[in-house]
Amino acid sequence: MVDHAPEFDQVRRFWQNPKVEQILAIHDIKSSLAHVRMLGQTGIITQEVTAAVLKGLDEICQELGSGKNFLAADGQDIHMGLERRLQAIVGDLAMVLRIAKSRNDQIATDIRLWLREAIFDVFADVCLLRQLLLDLAQRDLDVVMPGYTHMQPAMPILLAHWWLANEARFRRDFGRLVDLYGRLNVLPLGSCALAGTNQPIDRALVAEYLGFAGVMENSLDAVSDRDYLIEFASFASIVGVHLSQMSADLLLWATQEFGFVKLRKAYVFRSQSMPQKRNPELLEVLRSRPSVIYGRVTEFLSQLKALPMGYCQDLQESLPGLLDVVENLKFVLELAQILLPGLEFDSKRMEEAASADLTNASNAMDFLVVRGIPQDKASRIVEALVNYCKQRGRYLSDLELNEWQQFSPAFDDEVYQHVTLEESVGSRSSFGGTSQQQVAQALERARDALGADRNILPQVAAQRLETRLRQGVVSTQT
Amino acid sequence: MVDHAPEFDQVRRFWQNPKVEQILAIHDIKSSLAHVRMLGQTGIITQEVTAAVLKGLDEICQELGSGKNFLAADGQDIHMGLERRLQAIVGDLAMVLRIAKSRNDQIATDIRLWLREAIFDVFADVCLLRQLLLDLAQRDLDVVMPGYTHMQPAMPILLAHWWLANEARFRRDFGRLVDLYGRLNVLPLGSCALAGTNQPIDRALVAEYLGFAGVMENSLDAVSDRDYLIEFASFASIVGVHLSQMSADLLLWATQEFGFVKLRKAYVFRSQSMPQKRNPELLEVLRSRPSVIYGRVTEFLSQLKALPMGYCQDLQESLPGLLDVVENLKFVLELAQILLPGLEFDSKRMEEAASADLTNASNAMDFLVVRGIPQDKASRIVEALVNYCKQRGRYLSDLELNEWQQFSPAFDDEVYQHVTLEESVGSRSSFGGTSQQQVAQALERARDALGADRNILPQVAAQRLETRLRQGVVSTQT
Amino acid sequence: MVDHAPEFDQVRRFWQNPKVEQILAIHDIKSSLAHVRMLGQTGIITQEVTAAVLKGLDEICQELGSGKNFLAADGQDIHMGLERRLQAIVGDLAMVLRIAKSRNDQIATDIRLWLREAIFDVFADVCLLRQLLLDLAQRDLDVVMPGYTHMQPAMPILLAHWWLANEARFRRDFGRLVDLYGRLNVLPLGSCALAGTNQPIDRALVAEYLGFAGVMENSLDAVSDRDYLIEFASFASIVGVHLSQMSADLLLWATQEFGFVKLRKAYVFRSQSMPQKRNPELLEVLRSRPSVIYGRVTEFLSQLKALPMGYCQDLQESLPGLLDVVENLKFVLELAQILLPGLEFDSKRMEEAASADLTNASNAMDFLVVRGIPQDKASRIVEALVNYCKQRGRYLSDLELNEWQQFSPAFDDEVYQHVTLEESVGSRSSFGGTSQQQVAQALERARDALGADRNILPQVAAQRLETRLRQGVVSTQT
Amino acid sequence: MVDHAPEFDQVRRFWQNPKVEQILAIHDIKSSLAHVRMLGQTGIITQEVTAAVLKGLDEICQELGSGKNFLAADGQDIHMGLERRLQAIVGDLAMVLRIAKSRNDQIATDIRLWLREAIFDVFADVCLLRQLLLDLAQRDLDVVMPGYTHMQPAMPILLAHWWLANEARFRRDFGRLVDLYGRLNVLPLGSCALAGTNQPIDRALVAEYLGFAGVMENSLDAVSDRDYLIEFASFASIVGVHLSQMSADLLLWATQEFGFVKLRKAYVFRSQSMPQKRNPELLEVLRSRPSVIYGRVTEFLSQLKALPMGYCQDLQESLPGLLDVVENLKFVLELAQILLPGLEFDSKRMEEAASADLTNASNAMDFLVVRGIPQDKASRIVEALVNYCKQRGRYLSDLELNEWQQFSPAFDDEVYQHVTLEESVGSRSSFGGTSQQQVAQALERARDALGADRNILPQVAAQRLETRLRQGVVSTQT
Repeated sequence: MVDHAPEFDQVRRFWQNPKVEQILAIHDIKSSLAHVRMLGQTGIITQEVTAAVLKGLDEICQELGSGKNFLAADGQDIHMGLERRLQAIVGDLAMVLRIAKSRNDQIATDIRLWLREAIFDVFADVCLLRQLLLDLAQRDLDVVMPGYTHMQPAMPILLAHWWLANEARFRRDFGRLVDLYGRLNVLPLGSCALAGTNQPIDRALVAEYLGFAGVMENSLDAVSDRDYLIEFASFASIVGVHLSQMSADLLLWATQEFGFVKLRKAYVFRSQSMPQKRNPELLEVLRSRPSVIYGRVTEFLSQLKALPMGYCQDLQESLPGLLDVVENLKFVLELAQILLPGLEFDSKRMEEAASADLTNASNAMDFLVVRGIPQDKASRIVEALVNYCKQRGRYLSDLELNEWQQFSPAFDDEVYQHVTLEESVGSRSSFGGTSQQQVAQALERARDALGADRNILPQVAAQRLETRLRQGVVSTQT
Repeated sequence: MVDHAPEFDQVRRFWQNPKVEQILAIHDIKSSLAHVRMLGQTGIITQEVTAAVLKGLDEICQELGSGKNFLAADGQDIHMGLERRLQAIVGDLAMVLRIAKSRNDQIATDIRLWLREAIFDVFADVCLLRQLLLDLAQRDLDVVMPGYTHMQPAMPILLAHWWLANEARFRRDFGRLVDLYGRLNVLPLGSCALAGTNQPIDRALVAEYLGFAGVMENSLDAVSDRDYLIEFASFASIVGVHLSQMSADLLLWATQEFGFVKLRKAYVFRSQSMPQKRNPELLEVLRSRPSVIYGRVTEFLSQLKALPMGYCQDLQESLPGLLDVVENLKFVLELAQILLPGLEFDSKRMEEAASADLTNASNAMDFLVVRGIPQDKASRIVEALVNYCKQRGRYLSDLELNEWQQFSPAFDDEVYQHVTLEESVGSRSSFGGTSQQQVAQALERARDALGADRNILPQVAAQRLETRLRQGVVSTQT
Repeated sequence: MVDHAPEFDQVRRFWQNPKVEQILAIHDIKSSLAHVRMLGQTGIITQEVTAAVLKGLDEICQELGSGKNFLAADGQDIHMGLERRLQAIVGDLAMVLRIAKSRNDQIATDIRLWLREAIFDVFADVCLLRQLLLDLAQRDLDVVMPGYTHMQPAMPILLAHWWLANEARFRRDFGRLVDLYGRLNVLPLGSCALAGTNQPIDRALVAEYLGFAGVMENSLDAVSDRDYLIEFASFASIVGVHLSQMSADLLLWATQEFGFVKLRKAYVFRSQSMPQKRNPELLEVLRSRPSVIYGRVTEFLSQLKALPMGYCQDLQESLPGLLDVVENLKFVLELAQILLPGLEFDSKRMEEAASADLTNASNAMDFLVVRGIPQDKASRIVEALVNYCKQRGRYLSDLELNEWQQFSPAFDDEVYQHVTLEESVGSRSSFGGTSQQQVAQALERARDALGADRNILPQVAAQRLETRLRQGVVSTQT
Repeated sequence: MVDHAPEFDQVRRFWQNPKVEQILAIHDIKSSLAHVRMLGQTGIITQEVTAAVLKGLDEICQELGSGKNFLAADGQDIHMGLERRLQAIVGDLAMVLRIAKSRNDQIATDIRLWLREAIFDVFADVCLLRQLLLDLAQRDLDVVMPGYTHMQPAMPILLAHWWLANEARFRRDFGRLVDLYGRLNVLPLGSCALAGTNQPIDRALVAEYLGFAGVMENSLDAVSDRDYLIEFASFASIVGVHLSQMSADLLLWATQEFGFVKLRKAYVFRSQSMPQKRNPELLEVLRSRPSVIYGRVTEFLSQLKALPMGYCQDLQESLPGLLDVVENLKFVLELAQILLPGLEFDSKRMEEAASADLTNASNAMDFLVVRGIPQDKASRIVEALVNYCKQRGRYLSDLELNEWQQFSPAFDDEVYQHVTLEESVGSRSSFGGTSQQQVAQALERARDALGADRNILPQVAAQRLETRLRQGVVSTQT
């Protein structure tokens, strides 16, 4: 047995994460401000008390803004640190902070305020990334490249089509963020420890003051709900999957063997001993970093598993992880915005590959099928043609008519209009297909969709997006 | 080097999961039916061909219904198995199945059709569970119990309040399911291999035939999007967290030491060597099983990480996992529906615990604070009172007035109205609090919300819910 | 409330997994056999009883071997099913099975017996894969290829060096398996429910009968330890990482752009509409499937989190997952053994790439550094040289001496001996380097290490390996 | 397109983690010291150069020790920062650092050195925890409590038996750490970028200088092996499972309803509004924190999935996660060491519960079975007895003989010797059982095992353990 119990200082690190406490401070004050205003409005405390305490809280607010840290060396947490500071300013009036409020509903409110703030940034980042992808699609409307399945060339597509496919993914992500934001943006405060209060509080008023869209009703649920941990980390993970897949394609294209993409020098480390290298390390970071977020999903699910209803310290334990998800999500979204405009595409080589890879073999297939050759037979004929070309280092489009006809009498002069790269791309004009016309229309629709999405942004998010667009640090406009 | 390549039979198991192929068969036929109808409608194939092929597909549909298996021993997959069967019926006309369609967009469509079906069941299950929880809340409107934080008794609450907290969680889950359903219920077909087609297809028509709410536009994105794997597994995981936390509380209450809950004999195994045991194994299953779903989230995230855009076999690899998520999600939702009505609550013991645990100490606190005693001081006073009671095995409510006043002269006769269990519960009448009145109103609102949610169910889900409600296998109505 | 409790049949599916029960049956009998032998040997039961019961158990053993299923429709589990069958054979003597034994220590023993069996196969599979990799290294001792970092060509290496790097990884995996096998191969039986027994049992004897290397001492720990779930799944995951990385390289090399590797036709599906495709689907399976195992690690960790010490149903819940890990681990190990010998390497193209990629630029660097040019300056010189070559489509090795000397007067005739591909590979003769001599020696040492590892295999695993080597289904020997 | 590329400063944060760079600095210098010594010893550089450079490196070593930071604002990484510093001291001689070494094998070496250091601490922590558990077992050799399965009382056990069960788990963990340490403690340096070097280096000598037990042979494998990420995180996760399960039991016992355990005041926060509460927050931290480590396993597995062989930036990405695993592992191990001695066990209440819970019903069973009553029948008899007692609030041990005999004539006077708590515990004297004698012997063996394990500790770990034992901060010796 220890002969004397450890000092507070020796154990405090086990339950307190200073970074988390610090980050929550401003939101703690803000929710206190709203709470006290409501207490005054409902007459639970007098107007004089209300005014005095609000003034004190405002003062602390400014002090926080100028970098002061109220986490006392001997203090349990930031709540207590701020309460003490308030006491220093307004004396015992500070105690009104405790009326109809407990740590449990306060921390639940603080986290939602903080995450909401973070989401405003993520909204802006997702919109900026979508804008960038649309700009890149606009730029590359004429670039033909091989489309791949199984990493094998399949059919020629437009590079713009690929950019738009990526944008489509982040558009879905935007939708997910809107949905989860709706579930997050509700007020737990007023649930007190777990059961509500006997004070005649007005929770709707507090929600209004704090800009929440509604009140979380059931007090037990309100203090213990952490669904958003999983929902937000899952959202962030899907964004991560999208970024990781995009970077995987680009890494492939950046190999010497593909040679479609080069990173600008500014993004490349010179290898000390191998001057010929251009290591795409930042693309590798984009591929790898989302895994950090995936791990947090596992962490949160395990942390929340089989907890008792009501408040417990385990809920506090998830906060460093949540901060980390937000940080890494913004990190990869910003990295993508910086990297993508810096890629140099070798459109000539892409187009050559689209030809050389004989991706328009499919068009020869279509030619035969339309002329009544059964699919199976057509497939065998074209395979033989392809082998013929490969062995001779030639392209389908260069064959003489009599060469075509060695393989099937069904081929005639018209075949030359079908086995061009242009035809191969241009003919795929079904809705959502890769033809220039389709892609141009898709780009229009995507612009409209982005515009519509910007219109439903929460106001703060919309403002931040505006600001960042004005700064124009990252732009594809020349 | 092996001297001869392996036979097809030796390697097929490496890429084919018969269970998955079998499950997709019916959806493969359904999407083919819609596709062929569209080909006829748009004039891509003649009315005669259309009629003949549709008839053949209908026939296969019925054969599938009667249990036939078309996965041939030497066949690559169920697509080919079904195509062969169609060929046996309609001859070479079967080849029209290949017009403007590829395995890539077909499989993408089949999975969405299958998962949509599964979600209809999940919708019904979530509604049934919510209904059950509301019925239990109705039943237990008068049962007082200790409310816990940190597994320590905090304040008395109503058992009904706890049931409603659980319902609130599944209500959020319902919302998540609605959201993801919207993102899932769109059509990939018509994207062909990855780039669209040169045939004048009408994708909107196919979407209409298949009951999809829209068309997935970009062809690259449409064949490769598997976001729903993560979004659905994440949704299922959150449901799992809720069930696992609910069962954790119940397991605690089912201990001999708590003694709040007993499982009916029908749910309990007798221990061979320990006849006094009542092992709550089914509650443990409810606590544990969701972990299987959590693991699938990890699996999906890892599987999708850094895949190239476009189709690849990795996407196929996730199907057994998806089936497993659906199966286990339904499993736990059904287990909960069977278990919860079979629990026997000892309301007397719960009420005693609520008293014995001195949870109304908080009310004594409130009494002092309202009378102007600073919170800190009030807290010390009540702690002393509590210790006093504990040492003497007494309750606050039994103390004489002079005993109260030993601790603070602020106590007077009115204290007896505040430290009753009834007052302790009843006074917490803030919105969402645990007072009887609040809980009764919350129950009303929850019923309305469930009704409203039922009104927005997809039609098939609504019908299934109706049917199951009529069967009434699980019902809390006596 | 339900008006009547569900029948046993309605709830049994919630706690019983027939597949798991079935798989454990034979191990349940085997541990019972050992247990009863011990009871007889220690005199706890008479010789006559012992003989009769052992005979009955033997009979059941044979019945199980011939496919009988003893999981009764109304039976709780396979223990009870087998006990009933024994009762039908030996009457009430069957009750001796219950002496000094409970379900808790029995199931703990059964799982260890089953997993041990599975591990014997895994031992053999890992050894076979290592043998295969060594044979491939032997075959490819002369094949030069570009070595990559960041997927960018760095220096030429031998393909054999790459095979050996892979073998080195599975060698470490072998070591891990040996270690965990040691921790697994101990006996829980005799711990009874959780506390031991008052019967004078001899646990060491049972361990000996069952081939366990020792006895798990503490009875509480013995019935509840499931460390091996995580340790085995983690081991399997690392194997999975190795296979997934190996297949990632091969998939890259199988692209048309790299063109280093082709899969045999037998491993490739023909694309319906794109005859030119060779989709490496089986390699994609090898890349993807390990993710299933990663998910199980998450599942197990979550399942075991915060369980109470002693037995609970949650421990049973992990069994389907454990079966799945074993199944998928064997699956990928066997897939690798079938696939690797079927790959066709284009050694000419690999060598060309090694030259074309100017990987011997590093040797030019070394040449200068040895002659006293500071590294930084040397690096700039060689970079200029490389650019010079690229712009002219030439190789370093083809440059005239005066061209060399335009970049640095330090170059002289000797440079031609250093910038050959042969020199570039051959000179890297440090221990573990890629020179032919080093690689040949490494291959020798690897063969010795494999031999030594085979000598420490558990006997059953050694026999299985022998058998499979004799069958020689997969062999690289011509 | 951006009009100008970002400055180095704008992108550096995307590939550089200053905390990681800082932590690796000292190990970077240490491996450089060993490398340069070897270069001198083998004659690759002259004795004079060797001496000068070693002197410079020593100087930097001391500077690092005094807190200097060499990560330059415009520097790529800490390698470059240290090289620059060396250049400032010894001029161009600093370039010898680049001979036969690359960033790839250097970073691989640095991480192993760092993790080895961390493991020395973990070794000590695990031993200290085991020692503590043995001391607690010694202290509680006489405390009887209910043993639970399914959280239901099963049989009485000794609290010491429970402590020892926990120690048994950490003993296995120790074994795992020894095994993985062996696989970690080998040298990658000398593999250079990926293919070895043409310099006549002596890798074994460097290994010896750095205290590695061997050399990692294959150069490709040596620079890319990160198995230890998973193996170490998996080890740490298992430790975490053990701690989380231990804390789960303690949290249960700390409920008011169980009342077996209290936390010392120093470990408890007072609840502001509920003075009666003793929130076991630190135990909750111990239950929850390991989930952070579980998440890292997911992260590492996903990060490593399908990477190409050879070096890539993804490998660098795992470092913050690895640091985090180490930090949290030490955190929970230290928290356990501080918490456990501070728990106050109410042995009287534990013993009462063991009686009240009728856990010795099993002994009544045994009594009957030994007298020839079939198990099934015995079980029914005892169940009836138990119900009889429960309804009357009595204990088995208090029943009159005629009461016993109402249930079975097989009961006689001897039954009183069997249904005592003492007998119930004491009779379970099979090897590893809970009888006092067995537990005392087990404690002896555990002490021996710990002693033996301490003898095989790496030397540095042994010294740290010594030091910490001398400091005795955490000790159970009074």
